[in-house]
Amino acid sequence: MHNPQLDSNGGLRHLLTLDGLPREILTEILDIATPFTEVAERDVKKLPVLRGKSIFNLFFENSTRTRTTFEIAAKRLSADVVNLNVSTSSASKGESLLDTVDNLCAMQADMFVVRHAASGAPFLIAQHLFAHGRKDIHVINAGDGRHAHPTQGLLDMYTIRHFKGDFTNLSVAIVGDVLHSRVARSQIAALKTLGVPDLRVIGPKTLLPATLEQYAGLRVFHNMDEGLRGVDVVMMLRLQNERMNGALLPTPQEFYKSWGLTSERLALANSDAIVMHPGPMNRGVEIDSAVADGSQAVILNQVTFGIAVRMAVMAMLAA
Amino acid sequence: MHNPQLDSNGGLRHLLTLDGLPREILTEILDIATPFTEVAERDVKKLPVLRGKSIFNLFFENSTRTRTTFEIAAKRLSADVVNLNVSTSSASKGESLLDTVDNLCAMQADMFVVRHAASGAPFLIAQHLFAHGRKDIHVINAGDGRHAHPTQGLLDMYTIRHFKGDFTNLSVAIVGDVLHSRVARSQIAALKTLGVPDLRVIGPKTLLPATLEQYAGLRVFHNMDEGLRGVDVVMMLRLQNERMNGALLPTPQEFYKSWGLTSERLALANSDAIVMHPGPMNRGVEIDSAVADGSQAVILNQVTFGIAVRMAVMAMLAA
Amino acid sequence: MHNPQLDSNGGLRHLLTLDGLPREILTEILDIATPFTEVAERDVKKLPVLRGKSIFNLFFENSTRTRTTFEIAAKRLSADVVNLNVSTSSASKGESLLDTVDNLCAMQADMFVVRHAASGAPFLIAQHLFAHGRKDIHVINAGDGRHAHPTQGLLDMYTIRHFKGDFTNLSVAIVGDVLHSRVARSQIAALKTLGVPDLRVIGPKTLLPATLEQYAGLRVFHNMDEGLRGVDVVMMLRLQNERMNGALLPTPQEFYKSWGLTSERLALANSDAIVMHPGPMNRGVEIDSAVADGSQAVILNQVTFGIAVRMAVMAMLAA
Repeated sequence: MHNPQLDSNGGLRHLLTLDGLPREILTEILDIATPFTEVAERDVKKLPVLRGKSIFNLFFENSTRTRTTFEIAAKRLSADVVNLNVSTSSASKGESLLDTVDNLCAMQADMFVVRHAASGAPFLIAQHLFAHGRKDIHVINAGDGRHAHPTQGLLDMYTIRHFKGDFTNLSVAIVGDVLHSRVARSQIAALKTLGVPDLRVIGPKTLLPATLEQYAGLRVFHNMDEGLRGVDVVMMLRLQNERMNGALLPTPQEFYKSWGLTSERLALANSDAIVMHPGPMNRGVEIDSAVADGSQAVILNQVTFGIAVRMAVMAMLAA
Repeated sequence: MHNPQLDSNGGLRHLLTLDGLPREILTEILDIATPFTEVAERDVKKLPVLRGKSIFNLFFENSTRTRTTFEIAAKRLSADVVNLNVSTSSASKGESLLDTVDNLCAMQADMFVVRHAASGAPFLIAQHLFAHGRKDIHVINAGDGRHAHPTQGLLDMYTIRHFKGDFTNLSVAIVGDVLHSRVARSQIAALKTLGVPDLRVIGPKTLLPATLEQYAGLRVFHNMDEGLRGVDVVMMLRLQNERMNGALLPTPQEFYKSWGLTSERLALANSDAIVMHPGPMNRGVEIDSAVADGSQAVILNQVTFGIAVRMAVMAMLAA
Repeated sequence: MHNPQLDSNGGLRHLLTLDGLPREILTEILDIATPFTEVAERDVKKLPVLRGKSIFNLFFENSTRTRTTFEIAAKRLSADVVNLNVSTSSASKGESLLDTVDNLCAMQADMFVVRHAASGAPFLIAQHLFAHGRKDIHVINAGDGRHAHPTQGLLDMYTIRHFKGDFTNLSVAIVGDVLHSRVARSQIAALKTLGVPDLRVIGPKTLLPATLEQYAGLRVFHNMDEGLRGVDVVMMLRLQNERMNGALLPTPQEFYKSWGLTSERLALANSDAIVMHPGPMNRGVEIDSAVADGSQAVILNQVTFGIAVRMAVMAMLAA
């Protein structure tokens, strides 16, 4: 089957999902990101890599936080960035997603960073560009529905590699609301590709998708203490309470009791285990403040690496 | 009478309307735009023409689409662009339009791109600047009420010239909701000035303004098939349904039946006729998708030329 | 007590309040601002002072006007500016103020411009940065609750110095809704520090805070004619009608009758007195249009100097 994110030479044309992305490309992105982490520490945090390029932040779903990370990454590469909050724009005038895209292409866009509540929207755009022979325009998925959030997955991989070195001897646990989480889907895909031998998913039955069985070797735990025992990496998920309908969950307090990461629970993991979270955190719901601000947390490192990883993806696509 | 958009040497100081703008200036803008279309195809889409200039997108009426075209044009000329969505700002604190303008002038604005629901707002600003001796600050009308949308009219002229060469032997039809359309007003003014000998307006009586008679030689058609016969250019208008009050129009479906541009109807025009639309399109209302995406449509070319034309206007005003 | 806005050498690390800021620093800011007023009159209004720096406009309270002045100032210093309207972002996802700040720090922010409805929010951020050893990140208070608006106070001082030269022989009156005004608090602090010998506050009892007595030498007037007699500077305040609850004030018309600045009243001041207003003005409420647009008004000069003063503060902090 045609993989729309790769060009005919197997190079990266779009970044849509980490599912099916070859290990070499995953690793290449992480490698390219490394020097970009140093740019951010310079006095002048700017490189001319994307000078004169037009990057559109096309956010059909509001997310100031994610939009900001891409905006910063693009500006540090000297691109011209235009933010479009499309929910308040043409979409409300009845213009279709693809008409909006065609218009921006006609303005000589070089790259779209797309956030959409519907799973598959960035794919649809990439296919549309392909069908119209626009190989010069690149799409980055900044989160689509419950499907994927590949730059989040990549920055998570960068963080793990930074602190743990090698993937092939790690125990990693993903904890929480996997059912509603595009982040978890991207993490699982990347961790499998990078060769993590012991991958665990921990959460209540109501918040784990039925499709987890497809991942060979992945183990499911419905008891947090059991699941955390001996892991090297704890990847917490945000409790997507704005997506909850009330039927799946008791109160946040009860969730915390069973699934919140406390210092006591974290002590069950390896003593040098790292704690990750994609943010924004619900302190006292999925994570205790003592852990969030503790010495094992690498949550803010994730944010820092996220800028470098997004710069790397943009630089690769534009190259 | 004093024409506020020209300086004492007859040069362009502001772009407020195409009505009364001399043919030489219209043509000069189109000529200047030509090399700018090539900038957009370069690797580095950036010229230093407006470096260090402060351009304010002053949008009293929301329009992400139009704002984006001006933002892109200004950034490709290296200007500093500040977006002000004024409906949510000082206006709601009771500050008058002209107090807002005075404040931005005091911040050493170089140019205002003004969108306003009230016809004449950009004129009012230009007169105010004139009265205060601010010859160094320029106003571009980005659409005011039902009055004018001159950069849209200019990009339409650029598109026609690009595809048809000469204006003085053309048949051009403007189709649809002329009554509510500032675009149509700007198009008619420019087409007359540029010497189009056969200019037609096609639409239901309820959507054509009473004042069309003032344009010598303009012919009005209340039957679409008759109006399209033998034309070289079909300029569709967007059905401004958000402005409709229900009294003027039946359903969108009925509108489409009588006034929608289908392949069958387009076949009545000359075989090399081009189809234009200012966007965003209501597919299946004023235009059929087969036409919108067909080989005669130059709708996306309009968008591309629109960036170059806006760059040209900005460069001329600042020169 | 530790003054969080000064570093251990007494230099300016943050700008949080003018209260307690040494006269030398106040004067230094005004001195540095002077050449920046000339930048704005150049053809290319841009200096490379903050090239490659990331400045975040962190507005928890909407204010297009103030945000614009900081955005312009930062762009003229070549900084990368990212606007965050936080009320519509993470805050609504339950992320705390300090988690938001931590995240932006992790993106290698260089400076935060903070507007917040809660008094003390910028202090809280500065203390948090201090506690985490982040001496490289600077905070500018762009207005917090009823507490302070130091850049407004500074631009007012710049304006007075520009027109009056020396502070130590001036009579200055602040008129209006002092109770709700962070601007007035910043003005009073700076005027005292700079040695104004005759400082007056004029307003109805219901709009003057009880705490005014703490300022030695400050005189309170509940009759406007008396208060204006012989002053050199009249600093009007905006009637914060959006903050009124109806209990403190009669109608705007009645307010105007007693406290509006008319030409007749202004005639009681010295003949060369200047009239200031922080904007946006309520014409016909706290100030008559004849005065606002009259020869003694320096209200638009305040705006112009405001850009230069903000450039000066940013340049000093980043140095």
